Amino acid sequence: MAKELKNLTKRADNYSQWYNDLVVKADLAELSPVRGCMIIKPYGYAIWEKMQQQLDKMFKQTGVQNAYFPLLIPKSFFSREAEHVAGFAKECAVVTHYRLRSTEDGTEVEVDPNAKLDEELIIRPTSETIIWNTYKNWIHSWRDLPILCNQWCNVMRWEMRTRPFLRTSEFLWQEGHTAHATKEEAEAKAQEMLKVYADFAENYMGVPVLQGVKSETERFAGALNTYTIEAMMQDGKALQSGTSHFLGQNFAKSFDVTYLNKENKPEYVWATSWGVSTRLMGALIMVHSDDNGLVLPPKLAPIQVVIIPINKGEEQLAQITAKLQPVIDQLRELGISVKYDDNTAKRPGFKFADYELKGVPVRLAMGGRDLENNTIEIMRRDTLEKENVSFDGIVERVKDMLEDIQKNIFEKARAYRDAHVYECDNYEEFKERVKKGGFFLCHWDGTAETEAKIKEETQATIRCVPFAYEQTPGVDMVSGKPAVARVIIARSY
Amino acid sequence: MAKELKNLTKRADNYSQWYNDLVVKADLAELSPVRGCMIIKPYGYAIWEKMQQQLDKMFKQTGVQNAYFPLLIPKSFFSREAEHVAGFAKECAVVTHYRLRSTEDGTEVEVDPNAKLDEELIIRPTSETIIWNTYKNWIHSWRDLPILCNQWCNVMRWEMRTRPFLRTSEFLWQEGHTAHATKEEAEAKAQEMLKVYADFAENYMGVPVLQGVKSETERFAGALNTYTIEAMMQDGKALQSGTSHFLGQNFAKSFDVTYLNKENKPEYVWATSWGVSTRLMGALIMVHSDDNGLVLPPKLAPIQVVIIPINKGEEQLAQITAKLQPVIDQLRELGISVKYDDNTAKRPGFKFADYELKGVPVRLAMGGRDLENNTIEIMRRDTLEKENVSFDGIVERVKDMLEDIQKNIFEKARAYRDAHVYECDNYEEFKERVKKGGFFLCHWDGTAETEAKIKEETQATIRCVPFAYEQTPGVDMVSGKPAVARVIIARSY
Repeated sequence: MAKELKNLTKRADNYSQWYNDLVVKADLAELSPVRGCMIIKPYGYAIWEKMQQQLDKMFKQTGVQNAYFPLLIPKSFFSREAEHVAGFAKECAVVTHYRLRSTEDGTEVEVDPNAKLDEELIIRPTSETIIWNTYKNWIHSWRDLPILCNQWCNVMRWEMRTRPFLRTSEFLWQEGHTAHATKEEAEAKAQEMLKVYADFAENYMGVPVLQGVKSETERFAGALNTYTIEAMMQDGKALQSGTSHFLGQNFAKSFDVTYLNKENKPEYVWATSWGVSTRLMGALIMVHSDDNGLVLPPKLAPIQVVIIPINKGEEQLAQITAKLQPVIDQLRELGISVKYDDNTAKRPGFKFADYELKGVPVRLAMGGRDLENNTIEIMRRDTLEKENVSFDGIVERVKDMLEDIQKNIFEKARAYRDAHVYECDNYEEFKERVKKGGFFLCHWDGTAETEAKIKEETQATIRCVPFAYEQTPGVDMVSGKPAVARVIIARSY
Repeated sequence: MAKELKNLTKRADNYSQWYNDLVVKADLAELSPVRGCMIIKPYGYAIWEKMQQQLDKMFKQTGVQNAYFPLLIPKSFFSREAEHVAGFAKECAVVTHYRLRSTEDGTEVEVDPNAKLDEELIIRPTSETIIWNTYKNWIHSWRDLPILCNQWCNVMRWEMRTRPFLRTSEFLWQEGHTAHATKEEAEAKAQEMLKVYADFAENYMGVPVLQGVKSETERFAGALNTYTIEAMMQDGKALQSGTSHFLGQNFAKSFDVTYLNKENKPEYVWATSWGVSTRLMGALIMVHSDDNGLVLPPKLAPIQVVIIPINKGEEQLAQITAKLQPVIDQLRELGISVKYDDNTAKRPGFKFADYELKGVPVRLAMGGRDLENNTIEIMRRDTLEKENVSFDGIVERVKDMLEDIQKNIFEKARAYRDAHVYECDNYEEFKERVKKGGFFLCHWDGTAETEAKIKEETQATIRCVPFAYEQTPGVDMVSGKPAVARVIIARSY
């Protein structure tokens, strides 16, 4: 059984298969009988809950409040903003009826043709339209602004090719929607929320991200600017991990949302929207995990420390438990989540493999000899280093180790990422090298034509114009035209 | 403006209109343009979040884990359990297509007839079917049991008559689904979760509930037993506030879910499901609130204490703020949520009315004279009692008052409920008295015929056979036949 648990595809053999295997074997999620929709299993959901709680706290610290808007959007709303509908119409689930009836022979049910809706309803792929239709009633004067709302919910985009967490037809996310009196305030809010996402990715997920702005082609449908955080997976591909949009007055104009300014004159309202989704689970899994299974950052691990007694017989188990109990209590008092696994139906070897697969950051094990010697075995999941140490001071040691793991996995991921970011000025060279992954810093002439050519010939896309890169003008490597900045180009998920 | 806020329909004039007014005026929710779906506004959602957090904690203490299952259910799954589909088919939203396309003139979008689904999908009205289809793969041996899952999600039931929180087409809820090896264990779990609901209703919402079991007619579609908590509103009507179902082996048989018992023989699995929804918001509002607005239990109030400075000019405001700051800090250190409202754009009178309307449990106000005299005004929302007290010891006083309010509103609601529970043995008398509301303890012969007759003639229904009532046999007041027990009959929401 322990062998079977470990029987994971190796990253070097097939990175994509390794990911799919891991999601299932670590009990994170599985495919459902509904096309492209997944079932998030309790262990996977527990990680998502920890993400939600932290993000929610960070949003609220910026003044954001949660609310809830309807799942279904009337088709006519949806099509009011032209770019928006063009971006989403091809992949939306449509509700056309509101009742089933028995078939004539009474053995089955069928859609009742008498229960057709007057207007079809779309399951929200995102909620700008229904929310801006609502804001119209909430906003009258400058005193009503800003409005800073967020909702945690499910959305649906009928994707043709799906992968658990990375791309699914239904997914869970949060979507923030803010309304402001001025362009400057809205732009600042969009950027502020991107910084919240980057902070969360780096300091909680341990995933280094590059912040930047998307090219026009890659913008959210209806936005004037899309800001993004881009992470690098272990195969060198990019994963867009969160986006924040400056929407200008597009939705305010489509839904006629104006406010009276301090001079009592009507003006259109400025908007932002921003979201992260269960896609973050994909980033978390792919950035840190290894051929033995998941590696989780302690700050998001549902179980931070597992303690396994290795006993011969009931009596020894009782002795080991008595010895360990104060440690368990002290760790819990520190707010550390501890699982004491004294289930005798499973062998220690199975448990070791299982908790390794599930990415529990720290494992303690105590046997008869440890009891005699006042020692304990401690293993850290990130490096798999194992040590037999004195039992005294173990609480402090665990606490320090958790902090060290959190730091270490981030540093490791950052070193990997930094070693795979390349400046590149030659298109032929680029075409060759991009196949092996990595982020390429290349001058771009700013045209959609060049962007399309690169995508067609290499499957790579412009991920963003990075903020934290000192720019000098140059020559576009594809067109030979002048370019004002380097952009990040990479293949992506 | 303060007047307009207060301009609430009186309960005595029109209880139903009072409720609808209050939901809107207190910024809890509003109707959406989608039939029967509501928008939960930030203040309303903040209360729901507090409910969720507490319930979630209580569920987890019983060993329950959260998970997430798909929004959409294939029509064929839905119809596998005959009673279940009969119960829900008449009110479900059906997805038939997965794409829109532009109309010929390019100005609108329409459903793309080429994107018809092979099998229609139902937006979950509840998730037993998709979950039991999943459990089939999770359960093999007795070692895999019990499974204790819960999900927080949205569900959809196409209701014809809707009211905010009480009955809406889309609502938010939690649904727990457990799988057990034995009938006894499943029955015990169903009852355990009912007790969790009752505990939550009474000790957090301050809403007294009667626990009992539903008649066959009123059972959940597919259940062998439905347990319920029933609360009494201020008009004497019942509100079913939470239900827990013992599902027997019905869903296990429909989805072929068996396990190998310790003797290695296959047996069908036993099931429960249990849920509470945003309907609880309706109970919370209707039980405690008055003609001045909401009254919230301190344990669920988003703002527990509001502090309002009543100043003349900036300088005095600075003095008042300096005096109050240590109190604000100390209250927050105690985990009490405090809002210090020093917004000078609104007058104190407006603020007083607004926070009264929003049900903030304790209000403190400090003016120039208080500053001189070292006093402060304290008001409690439940009784509207106002006192000018010494500033010294105000933190302790506020803390005690919050506890007292929590107790008091429960006692008040219980006294009201108890004064409106009647034993009744005469059907003519019953018919007359039930119009004015109240819970009637009546002997029932156990037949669906009698139940239907009562409902038709009085609009009242059997709410439950109450647990906490000492039963003696008697005579059914309608049919004159022998009856083993008294049931609670009432009109309901």
